[in-house]
Amino acid sequence: MALLAVGSVALDSVETPFGTRREVLGGSATYFSTCASFFGPVRLVAVVGEDFPDEHVSFLRSRGVDLAGLVRRPGRTFRWSGRYEFDLNQAHTLDTQLNVFADFRPELPETYRDSSHIFLGNIDPDLQRRVVEQVRSPRFVAADTMNFWIESKRASLVETLKRVDLLFVNDAEARQLAGEHNVVKAARAILSLGPKAVVVKRGEYGALFFSGTEVFAASAYPLPELFDPTGAGDSFAGGFMGYLARARSLDHAAMRRAIVLGGVLASFAVEKFSLERLRVLNGDEIRSRFAEFRRLTHFEDLESDIL
Amino acid sequence: MALLAVGSVALDSVETPFGTRREVLGGSATYFSTCASFFGPVRLVAVVGEDFPDEHVSFLRSRGVDLAGLVRRPGRTFRWSGRYEFDLNQAHTLDTQLNVFADFRPELPETYRDSSHIFLGNIDPDLQRRVVEQVRSPRFVAADTMNFWIESKRASLVETLKRVDLLFVNDAEARQLAGEHNVVKAARAILSLGPKAVVVKRGEYGALFFSGTEVFAASAYPLPELFDPTGAGDSFAGGFMGYLARARSLDHAAMRRAIVLGGVLASFAVEKFSLERLRVLNGDEIRSRFAEFRRLTHFEDLESDIL
Repeated sequence: MALLAVGSVALDSVETPFGTRREVLGGSATYFSTCASFFGPVRLVAVVGEDFPDEHVSFLRSRGVDLAGLVRRPGRTFRWSGRYEFDLNQAHTLDTQLNVFADFRPELPETYRDSSHIFLGNIDPDLQRRVVEQVRSPRFVAADTMNFWIESKRASLVETLKRVDLLFVNDAEARQLAGEHNVVKAARAILSLGPKAVVVKRGEYGALFFSGTEVFAASAYPLPELFDPTGAGDSFAGGFMGYLARARSLDHAAMRRAIVLGGVLASFAVEKFSLERLRVLNGDEIRSRFAEFRRLTHFEDLESDIL
Repeated sequence: MALLAVGSVALDSVETPFGTRREVLGGSATYFSTCASFFGPVRLVAVVGEDFPDEHVSFLRSRGVDLAGLVRRPGRTFRWSGRYEFDLNQAHTLDTQLNVFADFRPELPETYRDSSHIFLGNIDPDLQRRVVEQVRSPRFVAADTMNFWIESKRASLVETLKRVDLLFVNDAEARQLAGEHNVVKAARAILSLGPKAVVVKRGEYGALFFSGTEVFAASAYPLPELFDPTGAGDSFAGGFMGYLARARSLDHAAMRRAIVLGGVLASFAVEKFSLERLRVLNGDEIRSRFAEFRRLTHFEDLESDIL
């Protein structure tokens, strides 16, 4: 089993009520591959500019991320800057500089073409398909998207959805994509477009998983300290896909554990700015928080005579 | 074990995107006692006017609700009217006519004074204490409140909290009462005011329970049809307290089941307008949905070699 990820590698500037950071490591593929790397190797497809610090490359390599598909192009690295208010569920983008990302045309190294699991980060749906088409026989393809693509490239996104096993969206994106306010109905409408499963991410409230008649509701871990929600969704996807690739199973029990592990990794990611918490995270902490999620959410059967 | 409830019995007029109802049965004590009645008898303390339809009295009696404490006063019954947009988490009050409720001074019949469990619905905190003081040795007292009392009678509410074992609040009320945005910190601040436990209700996202170091996160049941959220919180409290009074236990396992049953009753209440769904509900449906909540939220342990 080999996991491939495509997406952005970026330099982020972030303001929250708890502090600010300038030009720190960010990007969907960065959060994803760092989180997935706890479960096994990850193959990265992304582009950076000449100004991308070597220390970040070294960090990704130290996490066991295969960088054969990370290309360095003349120009500046993709930059995003955003602000969060006290309601950390909602990012306010202050500035986006695509730079080298504007001409990104993902080319897979020959060694990536036997990948079994693919994560298509939030990029142009044309490019998402271009990645899938370069893999010989993918076993499980998951994709992320956002309101920008739902609005501006719906037809292409719908084409991509036909090639995708699972779509990650948040509540608002699910509603927008389906044209339906009720999240259960919206998820069912998305399933009718092609994906076999959909995960609706709900920020601090957790996530819902829908596949056929299967529904799973995962709570988020109630955190007393939450500093920077940047990358939470990609960290969720990284924990989810990293586990699935390692577990060699796609049954419902594996999917449920994958969702919980997605929540575990996301809960760590937001505890500090950028990848600060993920840099020092270890497997024992992941195991321990997984066990805490079980204690947090499980309950016993009802007594037989209670009503 | 005997369960006592004080609160409003009202005639509600409700507009939602799915329809409207005029002057239908409503009120916190009505939803509460109907939901609690599936688990055992409930003693009601409330006031109605001369215009309150006999059929509603008959309905409550048919549910096994003890009406010795339901007084009829000259004048009109309390009326509330509200509107919900597509975001059904937020009620917009259009009109409130207190009528006989304005002079409500709860007096407990002698037969109520040995009650073991008390639910103090969302009324003036002065009156909430007045009820507790009339019960000889209550075993478990739970209270609801709202932004109006947090703003206008904080000192009295804080006095009430010293007499209360458990407080029900929603996210916004928890933040307002604690003066703290983070819901985990807000809950801890509320516990420091006196209650041994706090339930933070989060509408369609579920509920969080905090008591000492114990935390329980309950998901809400993802409903494809949600018609009228009026009474959801009181239905939650009714399922919760009805179960606790019947289970004769206050341990963590009982609390968790009580929270899930609160969610079960609330999920039925919102499926139709007013008490339409609760009127035809039966114990088998409650059991069945409780089992569905378990299937919806439980997951297996992590494999030992996964990371």
